[in-house]
This record gives sequence, structure tokens and C-alpha cells, in this order.
Amino acid sequence: MTETAVPIAIGPTQPAPTLLEKAVTEGGATLSDLADARALIWAGGPGEFPERLPDSVEWVQLPAAGVEDWFTGGLIARHPNVRFTSAAGAFAASVAEHALMMLLAGVRYLPEHLRAGSWRQQDFFPHVGTLRGKTVTIVGAGGIGRALIPMLVPLGAHIIAVNRSGRPVTGPGIPPTVETISAEHVSKVWPRTDHVVVAAPATADTQHLISADVLARLKPSSWVINVARGSLVDTDALVAALASGAIGGAGLDVTDPEPLPDGHPLWVLPNAIVTPHDSNPPQLRFAAFADHVEANVIRFVEGRKLLALIDPARGY
Amino acid sequence: MTETAVPIAIGPTQPAPTLLEKAVTEGGATLSDLADARALIWAGGPGEFPERLPDSVEWVQLPAAGVEDWFTGGLIARHPNVRFTSAAGAFAASVAEHALMMLLAGVRYLPEHLRAGSWRQQDFFPHVGTLRGKTVTIVGAGGIGRALIPMLVPLGAHIIAVNRSGRPVTGPGIPPTVETISAEHVSKVWPRTDHVVVAAPATADTQHLISADVLARLKPSSWVINVARGSLVDTDALVAALASGAIGGAGLDVTDPEPLPDGHPLWVLPNAIVTPHDSNPPQLRFAAFADHVEANVIRFVEGRKLLALIDPARGY
Repeated sequence: MTETAVPIAIGPTQPAPTLLEKAVTEGGATLSDLADARALIWAGGPGEFPERLPDSVEWVQLPAAGVEDWFTGGLIARHPNVRFTSAAGAFAASVAEHALMMLLAGVRYLPEHLRAGSWRQQDFFPHVGTLRGKTVTIVGAGGIGRALIPMLVPLGAHIIAVNRSGRPVTGPGIPPTVETISAEHVSKVWPRTDHVVVAAPATADTQHLISADVLARLKPSSWVINVARGSLVDTDALVAALASGAIGGAGLDVTDPEPLPDGHPLWVLPNAIVTPHDSNPPQLRFAAFADHVEANVIRFVEGRKLLALIDPARGY
Repeated sequence: MTETAVPIAIGPTQPAPTLLEKAVTEGGATLSDLADARALIWAGGPGEFPERLPDSVEWVQLPAAGVEDWFTGGLIARHPNVRFTSAAGAFAASVAEHALMMLLAGVRYLPEHLRAGSWRQQDFFPHVGTLRGKTVTIVGAGGIGRALIPMLVPLGAHIIAVNRSGRPVTGPGIPPTVETISAEHVSKVWPRTDHVVVAAPATADTQHLISADVLARLKPSSWVINVARGSLVDTDALVAALASGAIGGAGLDVTDPEPLPDGHPLWVLPNAIVTPHDSNPPQLRFAAFADHVEANVIRFVEGRKLLALIDPARGY
């Protein structure tokens, strides 16, 4: 190898976290002091960020997916010759995995199995379902939705992705058999929907998107999974649908109210799975950031387009 | 369309089950009486099978994956000019889906979540794991193992498949990054293994394959999933490993003894998931058979090689 080493610094912690050091070196670069670095991997907040960067620094990797705070302080504007990248997309996989886990556990009747304490095979047989041949509607085709689709496809599920534009969702691992429908036409898909995964941002438009009316149009076998924000589901209507058996069940990593208070009906309904917004816990978040850093270091070293490049004009 | 219709009969039930009729017509053939049929889809047992088939019949699809009983009665030998196919491989997907469900539920700490009844996010955070970047060793690379690999790959797991020969496992959805190791060298993989899925046939060689020694070489976070036969796991050793926290947990669709008697420790250990051998319940089995029939009807109509063709000389 006669290639020149690519020096990259890590900040603000010294010594740098091992996972990040590994990401830099396995990405093909060399750890260096900031003074000599061509790039800076930043694991801290905006408050600790250096006032001035050396002229040698061409790229800064920030640790957050949403970077409003970095714009607010003028930090990005101060460095017009530096490319900044966010961690957008890096944290979606763990949430998608959690959504898949809750959906599979629901469809295959795991909560009741865990309470059984006895074999009772004939009782259980009719309740064990499958995702094969079922239609899963994913509301929201951002990072989480896009990460979930390739996980569902090999299970033989048919996917309907709901986004704003209705333009076909594409990306790695997303086959052309995935249908895309615009949010304004979402009511058309409920009669064909077996299960719903909610993975859209919380906005005025998405408040109570899963309403009493929508729940009434699902099937007695349908599971509703929410890994977005609690406000997207009408909690009272959901509790009623779960209690009456109008739907099969619900898997919720987010709730409204949140945290869900002790004694809430969702804690005791046998067909509700509640996890306390822990689908992306700190230790997985950090590992996911390290993976994202490694992928971007590889791209930087090879001179390719960086992932999650921030556009200073758009503000994200 | 000027193509000649391909007449296919269904037996023994009249009227034939709707799912099978649909499989024949969606496969591109036409339903017909046996007297005029070029093929017969058989949904019954060997005892009811016609003594003589019309000369027009070229292919018979049998409904079982294991076809010993059809050989025993001489049924296959009586029809030397007919190709017989079994349902081998058709039933693996549901079992693989169940294995994935138990593994994900274990790794993401679902059993404890279901018992929580209270938010306690900080308590749960450190226990939520992921399959991303983890090594899953699948013992047995038959239908179930091969169906499971494409389900695990999009989750970012590294797969080690264990088979008899050690020849690389290949097939649809199985990437070259999957490692294959022969059963005689399986002890080498335990130190690198995060989780184990047991999906191998029950033989004298595989009895207690998951022994006290193997369990001792796994990690406190490791889950052991068994969807094969109870005898492959040493139950007493497993109970001890679960109780001491030597491994993370176990997901068992099969047990030894089976059925698992009331009061058995596996019913109460908090890190054991037991399902009563219901990973492939009757209603899913029938739907899977219909899918297999449709795939073979398409191949028959197009003159392609049939799936699960029985070799009369080998006996399966």
C-alpha cells in the first residue's frame, strides 16, 4: 500500500471511545490530532464544539439525526468550507427491528403463550398466524419505514408504504413489488390491510391518524404497531378496539400519554404489548453511530458522496 | 391466448378445497376430472389413492414432506411413468418465522416487558439487544435453516450455518457472506456465537447436541432457539444454564419431554419461552401446501423442472 493515510480526529472525549476509533481505522483512515486532521468525528454536543477548525478539516460528522441545535448556534454557518454530515438514518434499524419483533410476537400469539404455563397445543393451534401472504401497511416511509421493508419482504408479506407524495418508495432492499400510496388516499388501503405499522412523524396532520374509524375498518386479526409517537394513535379508541376484539392486538413502543401511567388499561389488556420507548436504547444508539461513522469514513477515504450530508441552505 | 389448456385434477375431496382450486388456476392450468387430467394434486392419504391412474396423468403432487408411507404401499412403484413430487420444503417457512419471532422476542427482552405493568424505561434500556452485528449459528441447513437465513440477513446478523458436509450453503436469498461449517467442527464456532438456532434432524449424532459443555461456552446474552426436536437439547443442562444466567434465554417450540408436563421448571423460568410445537399449525400447513402446489403448477405448465421431485430409487 502506497496510498497516503487519511488523518481523522475524534472529539471531544480523550481518549476517544473505542468503538469510534475502530470505526475510523476500519474505515481505512488514521487517527490523528485535530490540528492535522482532514476530518473530525464529533461525539459531543454543540456547546463543546471548537470555535475554529483548522483549515485542514474538510468534513465534520455530527452525532445527531436532527441537527436544529447545530444550526441555531451558527456553528455550521461559521464553517462554509466544511461539509457537515448528520447521523440521519443511522438509528432507524433498531426501531425497525423492534417493530418487526412486536408484530411477529403479536401475529404468532406470543403474549398468551407466555402466560400459558401448560402445553394445550390444540387451544393454541388456531391462534398462531403468519406474515406470509399478509398485507402490512407502513404509515411513513422515512428511515424507519425504509429499514423495515427489507425485513418484512423475506417473510412473504406484501407491503403498502404510505408517504406524502405517493411517489414509489425505492432504496436498498426495497423491491418493486412494494406499493406506495399517498397519505391523502390512505383510507383506500384499510380494507386490504392485515397489519399496520405507524412510523410517521408527529404533525398536526398525523394526530390520531389511527382513529376509531380506522380501527373499525381493520380485521379481528389485525395488529397495530406504533414506533413513531403516541399522538398518532387515538389511545381511547385503541383501548376500546383491543377490549372488544375488534382488532387482534397492539404493539406500542410509544404511548399517549407517555410515560404510560401505572394502572392504565394498556398495561393489563392481554392483547397489548407495551415497551417503554426503548426500541433504540443508548447502547445500541452508540453502536449504530459507530457503524454510520465507519460507512462515512469509507466514503470519505474513497472520495465518494457522504451519507446524510447536511445542506446549509435547507437547514438539515 | 391460443395455448392449449393444461387439465389438472384435484383429489380426493369433491368439491376440492378452494385454496387448491385457486392454486391450480392461478398457476395457469385448468381444473378437470381425473379421467382427462395431465396431473393430479392429491390432498389425501395413501389409503385413498386411486388404484390405477389414467394414462393421461404425467405428474402427481403428494401432500406430505416425508413420503415413506407412499413407498411402503407400493403406490409409487405401481406408476413408473408418472413423476411424483412431495411437499418437501413447503412447510419450512412458518417454522423459520417462528424461530425468528422467538429469537427477536428474547434478544429484545419481550418476556420481561410483558410482565412489567409499569414504564420503568431506565431499568429496561440496558436489556434491549439487537441482532445487528451479532453472529447467529444455525445448526442444520435443511428447509428450515435455508428459510431462516434470508430472514436474518436484513437484520444485519452474521450467519454461520452448520451442515454435515461443510459445503457452502447456497440458495435463494442466501448471500455468500454466510459461513458454512461441517458438524464435526461445530465446537470451533461456539466462542464466536452470539445466538444458536437448532434446526437439524433428530438422529443419534444430534442427541444432546446442545449439551452442558456447549451451553457453558455461550454468552450470558446468548439465546438458544430450538424448532427441531426436543432431544437435540439437554433439558436439564438448559434449565441449569437458564436458572444461573449462564445464557440469556431459550425459545423452545419443541421440548424433551414433549408435551412438557405441567409444573416443569421451563414453564416458570422468566427467560424461557415455550410454545407447544405449534410453529406450523394445521391452517398454515394447508396454505403452505397450496403455495407449493401453485409453484409446481406454474413449472408444469411451463415445462420446467418440478420442485421436490421424488426419486423412486432413493425413496424420497
